[in-house]
Amino acid sequence: MSDCIQLAHGGGGTLMQQLINQELRALYADPTQVLHDAARLELPPGPLAFSTDGYVVQPLEFPGGDIGSLAVIGTANDLAMAGARPLHLSVALLLEEGLPLALLRRLVASMAAAARACELTIVTGDTKVVERGKADGIFITTSGIGAVQAPTPIHPTAIRPGDQLLLSGDLGRHGVAILAARHGLALVPPVLSDCAPLWPQVRALLEAGVRIHCLRDLTRGGLASALHELAEAAVVELAIEEARLPVLEPVARTCELLGFDPLHLANEGRFVVVVPPQARDQTQTLLAASGGAWIGSVRPASKGARVLLTTSFGTERLLLPLSGELLPRIC
Amino acid sequence: MSDCIQLAHGGGGTLMQQLINQELRALYADPTQVLHDAARLELPPGPLAFSTDGYVVQPLEFPGGDIGSLAVIGTANDLAMAGARPLHLSVALLLEEGLPLALLRRLVASMAAAARACELTIVTGDTKVVERGKADGIFITTSGIGAVQAPTPIHPTAIRPGDQLLLSGDLGRHGVAILAARHGLALVPPVLSDCAPLWPQVRALLEAGVRIHCLRDLTRGGLASALHELAEAAVVELAIEEARLPVLEPVARTCELLGFDPLHLANEGRFVVVVPPQARDQTQTLLAASGGAWIGSVRPASKGARVLLTTSFGTERLLLPLSGELLPRIC
Repeated sequence: MSDCIQLAHGGGGTLMQQLINQELRALYADPTQVLHDAARLELPPGPLAFSTDGYVVQPLEFPGGDIGSLAVIGTANDLAMAGARPLHLSVALLLEEGLPLALLRRLVASMAAAARACELTIVTGDTKVVERGKADGIFITTSGIGAVQAPTPIHPTAIRPGDQLLLSGDLGRHGVAILAARHGLALVPPVLSDCAPLWPQVRALLEAGVRIHCLRDLTRGGLASALHELAEAAVVELAIEEARLPVLEPVARTCELLGFDPLHLANEGRFVVVVPPQARDQTQTLLAASGGAWIGSVRPASKGARVLLTTSFGTERLLLPLSGELLPRIC
Repeated sequence: MSDCIQLAHGGGGTLMQQLINQELRALYADPTQVLHDAARLELPPGPLAFSTDGYVVQPLEFPGGDIGSLAVIGTANDLAMAGARPLHLSVALLLEEGLPLALLRRLVASMAAAARACELTIVTGDTKVVERGKADGIFITTSGIGAVQAPTPIHPTAIRPGDQLLLSGDLGRHGVAILAARHGLALVPPVLSDCAPLWPQVRALLEAGVRIHCLRDLTRGGLASALHELAEAAVVELAIEEARLPVLEPVARTCELLGFDPLHLANEGRFVVVVPPQARDQTQTLLAASGGAWIGSVRPASKGARVLLTTSFGTERLLLPLSGELLPRIC
């Protein structure tokens, strides 16, 4: 039993101290922080972004990532979507009794590596343990603080008719990677999750002076849900062109085989950016290196907030949001 | 099924939007915040405190509180323990498929009321749903940002021999309330959890100019674990007097009956404060209204970091920390 998490690891006594000191210390940039309940931060002046996300992905390890790296990068990406440089993260672990310590160690190492990749520090945390059968291995909730670098508000309400829509890279890889791992599909070549920090791309746009109206990362519900949320929040019509949407061949093939639509599949390293018309070409150039592309434009909501897809055949159809659950526990 | 949480409520589609708009909107001070991934905050200049905690308490509702109020007040209290005024909170909900919506509504209302009581705003959140049998009703992780008001660092390393220890109120009520709810004990009179915001008491000390060396709230592991953590972090000996520890009669009686030690039971509205000797009487006066009292003092660690208890019989014994798990899922 000593190589697994026990209930007493969450009890506030000496076993919990051992867990923190031996297994979790690697998370923290400054290990003296773990001595107290809250971290003390000295931040640069200016507005801050604050975000939180819970992670429940299954399986815990998948091609191209794991729940640990996803929990760090996912929340860092939410900050980037507010035009903010990710600075500091909190990590709350919820462990199921019986979780192998070896797995926990791998996930902790993965979180620490992801924090370095995102150039942020993990400054505070918490650990709880629940009985076997009352959780599913490990759940992780991260919260992040970032320094807003964008000079103008990045928000759906800043979207205007005439604005241009660009997508930062290819679609559907995270969803297909999870699907393959969950169902034991041996894809050739293997499809890796696209899970990656988004701040470098956003920073490049901001440093080049692009006036970003809105950003949205494509997680649960994929591109279709993200565009719908934007259309409704901004009360506009979004018109996108199917032929412009980059989908890798093995992703498209798997989707066809299993009846999934890559526009509904989750991504963990892709975003949509909305810019004024005059910034379109510059944005396209800046995103091209990572496979980004122009995908459409914003129109007045003459028939209400909606998303229109021009198909490869030149016809227009309504792109509907996901109503139910396509693939549970994708993140 | 429509009166229960379904997997699709976590899927990123229209059902999740409905859940957020209809059930969770009451959490947010500014409902437009829920339109975007991260909240934008303009904070006062000066150092910040940042803290996170996951809540897994069972039962979800108990005498004197519920997991919702506990999740808001508990994290606000962690900020207070850093000498910080709680300002903003994030809320990540992890829901089990089948959770009754009526229960979720009660918990959301309770969180909103607790936020008002703590004079903080909930500014951002996240919701995930896992399959029936993969969680336990609801888990809540909150993260908080506070403005540090203390002029000097509040940290175990600021503790010095000669410092005085005071306790803010009576011990063990949260633990006994949970115990009674869990095991169907009908205590007469009923024992309510002591769950309450701590910032008002800390603010009163700071406003009176008390130079606080350290603060620690008494949650998992109770007073015994809190004192041990402080003794070890500060490398000092803490000597406390058993006769000075306030324990209400029904709490003492329940502990005696069930073989629990009130010094190991969790509290959710009590803290220890460490002050220099000259601040002892003023601190005692300020805490007296809420049942606070002087309990002991700090000595050099002549025989290592340890906690000594002078019993009612005048003998000294080592107060040992909890090694295992006394009462799982107390918070």
